[in-house]
Amino acid sequence: MKKHNFSAGPCILPQEVFEKASQAILNFNNLDLSLIEISHRSKDFVAVMEKAQALALELLGLEGKGYKALFLQGGASMQFLMTAYNLLENKAAYLNTGTWSSKALKEAKLFGEVVEVASSKDQNFNYIPKGYQIPSDADYFHCTSNNTIFGTQIKDFPATEVPMVCDMSSDIFSRELDFSKFSIIYAGAQKNMGPAGTTLVVLKEDILGKVTRSIPSMLDYKVHMDKESMFNTPPVFAVYTSMLTLEWLKNLGGISAIEKINQQKAETIYGEIDRNPLFTGFAQKEDRSHMNATFNLTEGANAALFNELWKEAGINGINGHRSVGGYRASMYNAMPLESVQVLVAVMQEFERKS
Amino acid sequence: MKKHNFSAGPCILPQEVFEKASQAILNFNNLDLSLIEISHRSKDFVAVMEKAQALALELLGLEGKGYKALFLQGGASMQFLMTAYNLLENKAAYLNTGTWSSKALKEAKLFGEVVEVASSKDQNFNYIPKGYQIPSDADYFHCTSNNTIFGTQIKDFPATEVPMVCDMSSDIFSRELDFSKFSIIYAGAQKNMGPAGTTLVVLKEDILGKVTRSIPSMLDYKVHMDKESMFNTPPVFAVYTSMLTLEWLKNLGGISAIEKINQQKAETIYGEIDRNPLFTGFAQKEDRSHMNATFNLTEGANAALFNELWKEAGINGINGHRSVGGYRASMYNAMPLESVQVLVAVMQEFERKS
Repeated sequence: MKKHNFSAGPCILPQEVFEKASQAILNFNNLDLSLIEISHRSKDFVAVMEKAQALALELLGLEGKGYKALFLQGGASMQFLMTAYNLLENKAAYLNTGTWSSKALKEAKLFGEVVEVASSKDQNFNYIPKGYQIPSDADYFHCTSNNTIFGTQIKDFPATEVPMVCDMSSDIFSRELDFSKFSIIYAGAQKNMGPAGTTLVVLKEDILGKVTRSIPSMLDYKVHMDKESMFNTPPVFAVYTSMLTLEWLKNLGGISAIEKINQQKAETIYGEIDRNPLFTGFAQKEDRSHMNATFNLTEGANAALFNELWKEAGINGINGHRSVGGYRASMYNAMPLESVQVLVAVMQEFERKS
Repeated sequence: MKKHNFSAGPCILPQEVFEKASQAILNFNNLDLSLIEISHRSKDFVAVMEKAQALALELLGLEGKGYKALFLQGGASMQFLMTAYNLLENKAAYLNTGTWSSKALKEAKLFGEVVEVASSKDQNFNYIPKGYQIPSDADYFHCTSNNTIFGTQIKDFPATEVPMVCDMSSDIFSRELDFSKFSIIYAGAQKNMGPAGTTLVVLKEDILGKVTRSIPSMLDYKVHMDKESMFNTPPVFAVYTSMLTLEWLKNLGGISAIEKINQQKAETIYGEIDRNPLFTGFAQKEDRSHMNATFNLTEGANAALFNELWKEAGINGINGHRSVGGYRASMYNAMPLESVQVLVAVMQEFERKS
C-alpha cells in the first residue's frame, strides 16, 4: 500500500517520476549505462541539464526576459550566503517571517548592514507582516515566500524599486505569480521540484556585477551562469529527477493547472480545521499557506487516539515542527487531493470517536 | 549488453549498487515510500547517514583517531575554498600537479599568502615533483593525490610537520595509505565512492579553530561537524548510494583487497601500452596513476581504426581530456579486470590490423 505522504520535505514526488528515475539508474536513454555512471559532459546529460533549465524558465513565464536558470548545490542555506556575497555592498533589507528568513538574515550580516524591515516573531511567526517600509537605498530586499514550519505564505509581495530576492523553496511552481518582479528566485529542489541535492537559482542577469569584493568561484553566480551550471560536476541524479518533475508539471498544464488543484487541497483541509471543534489552525487565516497547513488539537482532545487513527489510515509525516507543535499537513504539488480527503476523513472519524 | 565503462567520472559503480539504488527509489526499506520522499530526519535516513560516515572512517582505518567524516555538497571545487576559508590565516603551501591543484591554489589566494612549493606545469603535468621544501610556518600543505586528467599519482607523500590537506577525489579507497598523516582528506563522490552530488570530507578535529575570520555557516566545517552532516538537508540519494558503495567495498575485503585488483588492472593496461609499438604512455613511469592510464597513439598510427575497434567492443569513455589528447582509461574500484582485458585485446587487435 502506497502511503499518504504529508512529509514537509523531502516530500512526495509524482509516481511516474519515481518510476522513470528508478529505471534511469539501471539503464539511461537505452545507453546500456546507468544515468549515474556517464560523464556529465556527455551529450545525453547535457541535454538533461539544458531541458531542466529551459523548463524552469518556461513554467515561470521567464523565457526571453533576461533570466538564467541554474541548478546548483548546497540547498537554500547556501543561497543565504551566496545572495549576500554577490549582492550586498552596503545595505540589504530582510523581511523576517520565520526560521528560514532568520537564518538568511544571519548569514547576510557577515557581508554588510542588514535592516530587518519587519518581523512576525512577536507571535511565533503565525502571520505575515504588512505595511512595512523598504529603504530605497537597499541593495536588495529579501523575503521567504512560504514558511513551511509555521504554515504562512506571502499573498501580496511589496511594490518596491529595490531588487527583490525571494527564497521560494517551499512553494515555487505551486501558484501563478508575476515572477518577473524578482531579480533572484531560489529554491531547494526537495519540495515541489525534485529530490534533495540541487537548488534552482533563477537570476536576472543585470543584478550582478555591483559588489567590489572578490568572490570565490563556486560562490560566484557569474561563474555558474557563464558555465551554464556546469562549472563543476553537477548533482546528476537530482537534476535529472527535477527535469522529470518539471516535465510532469508541464504535461499537467503548468502552474495555472496545479494552482487549481492546490487551491482545492487547501480548501479541503482548512475547511475541516475550521469546522471540526477538535482542531484549531495555527496561522492567521489571511496568511495561510497552501503548501503547509499547521494545526493543533483543541484543549482536552485525545492526541493518542488521533495519532492512532492517522497511522492506521496510512498517513505519514504530519507531526508538526517542534517550534509549533501539533500537526502539519504538507500538500506539495505531487500530493493528490485524495490524500487530503483521507486525512479529512480521519479528522471526522476522530470527532465521532472522541 | 552492459558496456565497458572507462569514464573518468562520474563513472562505473558496482552493479549491485545500481540495483539497490534503483529499488530504493521505488520502495525504501519496505516503508512503502521512496528513499527520496522521506524526511532526512527520519530514523531510516539518519541510519543511512550514520552508517556512511562510520564506513568511511572504518575503511580508512581512522576510527577512534579523532576524525569525523562529513558528507557535504559542492564537490571538490567547494572544498578548494572551504579548506582555505577554515584554515588559511597567514600562509599556505600548495603542490601543483595539474588542473585541479591549480584551481585549488587559485581559490586559496583569496584568503591569504599561497606558496607554490613545486609544479610540474613545465612538462604539461606528466610527472609528480619531488624533493620540494614545505615552509615550516605554513598553516597547511595542500596536494592532489591523483591527477585524473594527466594520469599521475603521488606515491610518496612528503614528511612534514605542517598539517596535510589532500584532495583524494579520484583515488580515495583505492590503495592503502597511512590516512592518519592527513588533517583533512576530501573527495567528490563520483569516482570511487558514489554518484555525483556529495563530497566526503574527513577532518581531524584539532585542525579547526585557528583562523580569526568569520565563516558563513554553510562553509564552516565546525558547523557541519557539530550537526553530523545534517546542518541542512543533505543530498539524500547521493549519500545513500555512497553508503551502498562503501558497503560493497567492505564486503569485498576493504582497501587492501581492492588495491590488489587495482594493481592487476594497472599492470594489465600499462604492460600493453609499453609492449605495443602503436601506443605510448603520457605520464612518467614512476608516477603513473593506477586509476587513470593516459596514452597516445604513436606517430602514424591509424586513430580512425582504433576508435572503430574499441567502439565495436562496447567500450565507453576512453577519449583523453583535451589538455592531453589521445586516450584515458579510467579504472576506478568498480571497474572489473575483465573490462581492462577487453581493452587490451582491442589494442592487440589494432596492432594486428594496422
